[in-house]
Amino acid sequence: MRGGKGILSWPLWPFVTEYQVPRGTRDLLPETMAKYALVERKLGEAARLFGFRDIRTPMFEATELFTARSGEGIIEEMYVFEDKGGRSMTLRPEITASVVRMYINEMTKSPKPIKVSYLGSCFRYEKPQTGRFREFFQFGAEILGAPALESDAEIIALASNALSSLGISDLVIRIGQIGIMRQMLQSTRIPKEGWPAILHSIDKKEFGQMEATFEDYGDSSSSDRFSALAELKGGREVLAEAREIAGETDALVYLSSLFDRLEKMGVKGLTVDLGVVRGLDYYTGMVFEVDSPSLGAEKQVCGGGAYSLAEVFGGEPIPSTGFAMGVDRLVLALERQGYEFDLSGVWAYVIPLGEKAVSPALSLVAEMRKAGMSADIEIMGRNLSKALAYADVCKARYAIILGERDLAAGNATIRDLKTGDQQPTKLTDIIKVFKAFRQHVKE
Amino acid sequence: MRGGKGILSWPLWPFVTEYQVPRGTRDLLPETMAKYALVERKLGEAARLFGFRDIRTPMFEATELFTARSGEGIIEEMYVFEDKGGRSMTLRPEITASVVRMYINEMTKSPKPIKVSYLGSCFRYEKPQTGRFREFFQFGAEILGAPALESDAEIIALASNALSSLGISDLVIRIGQIGIMRQMLQSTRIPKEGWPAILHSIDKKEFGQMEATFEDYGDSSSSDRFSALAELKGGREVLAEAREIAGETDALVYLSSLFDRLEKMGVKGLTVDLGVVRGLDYYTGMVFEVDSPSLGAEKQVCGGGAYSLAEVFGGEPIPSTGFAMGVDRLVLALERQGYEFDLSGVWAYVIPLGEKAVSPALSLVAEMRKAGMSADIEIMGRNLSKALAYADVCKARYAIILGERDLAAGNATIRDLKTGDQQPTKLTDIIKVFKAFRQHVKE
Repeated sequence: MRGGKGILSWPLWPFVTEYQVPRGTRDLLPETMAKYALVERKLGEAARLFGFRDIRTPMFEATELFTARSGEGIIEEMYVFEDKGGRSMTLRPEITASVVRMYINEMTKSPKPIKVSYLGSCFRYEKPQTGRFREFFQFGAEILGAPALESDAEIIALASNALSSLGISDLVIRIGQIGIMRQMLQSTRIPKEGWPAILHSIDKKEFGQMEATFEDYGDSSSSDRFSALAELKGGREVLAEAREIAGETDALVYLSSLFDRLEKMGVKGLTVDLGVVRGLDYYTGMVFEVDSPSLGAEKQVCGGGAYSLAEVFGGEPIPSTGFAMGVDRLVLALERQGYEFDLSGVWAYVIPLGEKAVSPALSLVAEMRKAGMSADIEIMGRNLSKALAYADVCKARYAIILGERDLAAGNATIRDLKTGDQQPTKLTDIIKVFKAFRQHVKE
Repeated sequence: MRGGKGILSWPLWPFVTEYQVPRGTRDLLPETMAKYALVERKLGEAARLFGFRDIRTPMFEATELFTARSGEGIIEEMYVFEDKGGRSMTLRPEITASVVRMYINEMTKSPKPIKVSYLGSCFRYEKPQTGRFREFFQFGAEILGAPALESDAEIIALASNALSSLGISDLVIRIGQIGIMRQMLQSTRIPKEGWPAILHSIDKKEFGQMEATFEDYGDSSSSDRFSALAELKGGREVLAEAREIAGETDALVYLSSLFDRLEKMGVKGLTVDLGVVRGLDYYTGMVFEVDSPSLGAEKQVCGGGAYSLAEVFGGEPIPSTGFAMGVDRLVLALERQGYEFDLSGVWAYVIPLGEKAVSPALSLVAEMRKAGMSADIEIMGRNLSKALAYADVCKARYAIILGERDLAAGNATIRDLKTGDQQPTKLTDIIKVFKAFRQHVKE
């Protein structure tokens, strides 16, 4: 078939497929978008409640910003391109690195702590699968420049509050401390370059693989202690067990203080999970993940921790802590919980019947919009029942029907689209009537 | 110096510059971001008031989506990259093409009209200059599937309302009709392939260039009529003058009806400007631009018109009209007008003085946040005056000072950060007092 003229041959075939949404990306149609907008609005409100201030960074960055800490290997998983000046650019796979770059470029002189939050698209190049997209939407927050204990507590409290404010009720906050494993690794025969492989195995709960790595370095005796520690989970009483395995380390003392502070802040659902080490290479101390167990396999809704990035980008080191949540996962969580999203459309859909009704209908719609009440007007020239069907699909709350005979008497008909009740109303009273409706809803 | 070790030589030099914001893009720091957020929120609210529903499309699209109408030449001005599957992708230079693609892919069966709005980043590859960025933020709206007159009026009314809702008061809406020039071109000797050059010259007001093009085609007599038409501006009475130049065309009759309808909708600042032909190639009928003359050289804040794109992407033709506005330009407009942006921070900045005050301070902050009042807490261990200075920089409204002696008596001090007034208050009354403050602000 090479060079053939069949219907699927070049150049027709690409013509058919090119005008599609790029693989792994999505169009958010109005109903879906309304759900995303709700989730994003509530997350942003939670951040402001905690004194975080919203920022926005560029959609792409110099590739080095992402390879500096993670190495060139990560290029495989990112959207990397050369700009016309020959510079390698990358669509951001996450936003923390950009925040730290922004801090170094423009905020080192700002009073500390710097508390910022953000919302935006991130990109990764991977095989699309359920709930994982090449363009995805992330909410996150970072605290720069404040002591670790206070920052870590504040960031965990914000994550908890933001998720609760969405109505996700079954939150389990799993808190670990990467320093415990690091301190234990120092007492093994594993050289520093072997640590990432060990931590990676722990992150993936691949203990067989971890044991093999220990054996490769001729230190098979240590493996059991690491897997025992990684499987420690529960309330803060677990910290005593950890002490038996790892000895009294600074990191364990730190976790105790952190639990104290979080309890004083009224944060619920706190657990210890020393197996949390997180995939990213830049975490240095506290690490945490938040689950909503009712979500099953996709239960993890948030991850974060304390990190150290500024010095990687040529800045002075600064204590930093933060988290990110996937908005896609949160929308999914609310859908699975049967959350009743408000998908309502305009207050009033105005339907002029006949040419003479158009002018008063246009005035009425303009008047309603001026009064801050959403309104739309039938412009397809449909008959009443078809126009009402459209108003229904658009989830309008009321229809206002302007018939020529009614209009001659100075009237219009208000129809409640939920109940079907109709009520003839003086045209001059309509705004007043709707203001009363709205007041009623507010109360 | 090649291979030298000077401070600016390779490989040190790229290390110094790479961790910068990419050229032509920006970090929006908290204060700037607050301005963008305000403008974007108000634009979105205006769209909802008119019955438009928000959507979101991918940040990049198959390159063909943008070259299909505009030709390969546009590639020079866009961020084009190959993905790992060898497909050519482009960071969207605008969002209308994506909306039409989305319509063809997923919304052809949706009830008409389809009224959608969007907000998001767009990208163009060009020399950065004042007020023009490589990543910029666009708000726009589109109506698909309704009669031209009704859609055009609605889209112009929305643009006018959205801009007014921002407080931009000196709006001039310049409305043209690309069909008039097209109908006139039909009676010249210029073949169709010569039309874009003529229209481009008119768009740029380069009448000398236009005359040269007419001469090239051996039709120098027509040039004057076109420049006369392109310079016609004023109230709707100008339409009569246009009729003398162009003859009675459908397009002129259409403009009359459009003005009738817009006047019934109460839209102010309407003018005729037959020189508006817009740069993009897909406009087919009404075209409009909105100026805020007080902005001087950057006065244009919105542009749009009726277009025809669906058939270019392999769909059935559908009447379409829309506009886009640059959020950057609008923020600039408000700044120049001296608009007082609300940059306020948290309601209360809680300052514990001494170790014993930390616990009650943490409880108080948690309680305030729970009651929906934004609050933050001093975590740097600063003394009172330095902590107050930070609260001031963050634009907190009140400080709550918890001193150990006050606390022993069950008291705290509320300090009004605007007036400097201080008031000792029972710790147990603080939430009540703040609820009263908030109620006062709402009234």
